[in-house]
Amino acid sequence: MRAVDIIIKKRDQGELTKEEIEFFVQGFTRGEIPDYQVAAWAMAVLLNGMTDQETTDLTLAIAHSGSVQDLSGVVDIAVDKHSTGGVGDKTTLVVEPVVAACGLAVGKMSGRGLGFSGGTLDKLESIPGYRTNLTTEEFMAQLKRIGLVLTGQSGDLAPADGKLYALRDVTGTVPSTPLIASSVMSKKIAGGAQAIVLDVKVGLGAFMETVEDARKLSELMVAIGKLSGRKVVALLSDMNQPLGQAVGNALELREAIDTLHGGGPADFREHCLVVASHMLRLGNKAASLEEARQMAEAAICDGRGWGKFRELVEAQGGDVSAVDEPERLPKAAYVMEMRAEKAGWLAQVNARVVGETSVTLGAGRAQKSDAIDHGVGILVHQKVGERLEAGETLFTIHARNQAEAEQAKEALGQALAWSEQPAPELPLFYGVIE
Amino acid sequence: MRAVDIIIKKRDQGELTKEEIEFFVQGFTRGEIPDYQVAAWAMAVLLNGMTDQETTDLTLAIAHSGSVQDLSGVVDIAVDKHSTGGVGDKTTLVVEPVVAACGLAVGKMSGRGLGFSGGTLDKLESIPGYRTNLTTEEFMAQLKRIGLVLTGQSGDLAPADGKLYALRDVTGTVPSTPLIASSVMSKKIAGGAQAIVLDVKVGLGAFMETVEDARKLSELMVAIGKLSGRKVVALLSDMNQPLGQAVGNALELREAIDTLHGGGPADFREHCLVVASHMLRLGNKAASLEEARQMAEAAICDGRGWGKFRELVEAQGGDVSAVDEPERLPKAAYVMEMRAEKAGWLAQVNARVVGETSVTLGAGRAQKSDAIDHGVGILVHQKVGERLEAGETLFTIHARNQAEAEQAKEALGQALAWSEQPAPELPLFYGVIE
Repeated sequence: MRAVDIIIKKRDQGELTKEEIEFFVQGFTRGEIPDYQVAAWAMAVLLNGMTDQETTDLTLAIAHSGSVQDLSGVVDIAVDKHSTGGVGDKTTLVVEPVVAACGLAVGKMSGRGLGFSGGTLDKLESIPGYRTNLTTEEFMAQLKRIGLVLTGQSGDLAPADGKLYALRDVTGTVPSTPLIASSVMSKKIAGGAQAIVLDVKVGLGAFMETVEDARKLSELMVAIGKLSGRKVVALLSDMNQPLGQAVGNALELREAIDTLHGGGPADFREHCLVVASHMLRLGNKAASLEEARQMAEAAICDGRGWGKFRELVEAQGGDVSAVDEPERLPKAAYVMEMRAEKAGWLAQVNARVVGETSVTLGAGRAQKSDAIDHGVGILVHQKVGERLEAGETLFTIHARNQAEAEQAKEALGQALAWSEQPAPELPLFYGVIE
Repeated sequence: MRAVDIIIKKRDQGELTKEEIEFFVQGFTRGEIPDYQVAAWAMAVLLNGMTDQETTDLTLAIAHSGSVQDLSGVVDIAVDKHSTGGVGDKTTLVVEPVVAACGLAVGKMSGRGLGFSGGTLDKLESIPGYRTNLTTEEFMAQLKRIGLVLTGQSGDLAPADGKLYALRDVTGTVPSTPLIASSVMSKKIAGGAQAIVLDVKVGLGAFMETVEDARKLSELMVAIGKLSGRKVVALLSDMNQPLGQAVGNALELREAIDTLHGGGPADFREHCLVVASHMLRLGNKAASLEEARQMAEAAICDGRGWGKFRELVEAQGGDVSAVDEPERLPKAAYVMEMRAEKAGWLAQVNARVVGETSVTLGAGRAQKSDAIDHGVGILVHQKVGERLEAGETLFTIHARNQAEAEQAKEALGQALAWSEQPAPELPLFYGVIE
């Protein structure tokens, strides 16, 4: 078998066999197939597409490019969740403790933020001492002991994925639905997931800007699940405006803590309950979504979700007093309110602009090597569809200094669109695919 | 400007600007744009195509990736010819001396054979001592002195072309009409050509298998010529069956010598006269093709073409006695005739099979580093459309030994198709594009 023949087959719109895909992925992982051949192949895949079977074979080949975690000795059914990335998306911080409190053990490997969307690891690292580099042994032991782990991805899981993504990033081959789907699914499968809830974000602040694109990606990932024997549910959720109020690491952590205490913004709380319900149902802890939702609500109400979160922080070496008294979490030096200059209905709060502004404030990274400031960020007080009067607070900007706050204010002005007519609210979800 | 944005633009079917193409080619030539980005770009070009303007800009950028030869001080108008490569195509060996004998100075850089088609340099190197590595100074001096040069390509001419071709070869991006056209034309332009006769081969033994594909490629090269201020004529010529009789280096050289003496196979002689006529007309030596043809015929008849060829051999250090007495050229150790086993009309003499068989005999290379045997090859005695009786000679096989000759005989049997009805002859040409 020769790599060039596999490229030519895909170039000519042929369907690659499992053996050809495995040969290609293994050769690339071992450094035997050079980057330039993989780059040409990736462009051919982007332009000519892949069948569901090909994408499944690619997913499994990438998943097996390193070790595949086996959680079967530790949990009854390994349920994972994955968000395609959004602005203000701190869902994992609430959902996983709530689900774990309901008796469904979850061990999750999260990523860091890159570009305008944040990452769960960065948010957790707002807690002094919190470790995100657990070894596989520590992961397993903690999952068994407290039923909850939130850590970073082990370097040995799906190494082909990291290598392929780095190459796609510089060769214009990122926006390929089969390549995105196999990247997401391969990491989950390598992590040992048997059932997966996918939170596929749609809109201005998401990678998928249209419901149609998000639906295609979701259908493909659900198909991969079916063909590879995993249970998969995909939720299409709105990312035209930020989720909840907080955007920025410690700010988001505080909002998650509020939500675990039964508070938090209504949209974010609702989003968490829906995601948690699907996880509990996939994990066989509830027979229906309704029953699952009641379990999740109860775990928030009676404080078991919050208790589980404290256990998690303690288990991973974090300073529990910092989550007990969130005012001890990292703070920004300069806080400024931004108010409405006129009355009207809000027709847009552009999630992407808000996300990019928070990165400029220091909450995220433009490049992988950038350091981040856990204290800075933005509180988004208004949602699309609301009627505002002049003087009402739009944003609270948490900055390192006044100059940067002023800059952010300027930028955030561009995030808003006003209407003189009532503007419709945005839905939280656009559909469920399973 | 970033390479990845240029890839993305082509991926999304955008038209690249001259500046973008120059940036990309220059960056690649200097090693600043890595192979993997160029590979992804080449696949996007192959699948999404290029406009005539883009292809012209690419051609000129590749031509200017090294030094561009200026022949204006040496010749009135620099006319070049190029064949896309065929089996038994020794046209250059006849046409260039004939044209030079008519007063049109021609300095040509030729290539070596690769795959099933031979190269002019290999044929010339059948002559003991013949140098194909002239320096630019030697090239210029000889062109001025005798009006004829046949040498190899200088490494400094269009270096981006060699680099790009090597990459295309291993990334499945060879068969892209814009990339083929720019490769051919960039080398000619870098060599200083102001007018070019393209001999575009069509058929079983050519890169372009259909007249339609060859026409597209020809039209594109003619368009590049127009947009870059060069005169270009493309001849679509048959390569379903070998050209002339001889396939193999010294055998082809002998056939060229015969033709320069007024003999040679009729089809090859006619092909040479047509190509020479177009060159003489483009070079302003004749007002019409008819006049040009008479000049070329005369130069063969009165021995001036042959005399020019001898001058060439002498100028480039070759042993003139070996072309004066061709029996002194390299010979094969074992010669075997292959005869018709039945009567019938010949419906096919597959040029590709004949070419591949000659490579197996040692006349060509499967890989660039392979050594070749100048003496071996095949004489093809019959043309498509001829009526044969059992026992008539089909091929004469010139091999290193009997075993290899038997093997070649076996293979050559597959080159033929027979018909019990009269089969039509193949045309020499399918059209002229200018």
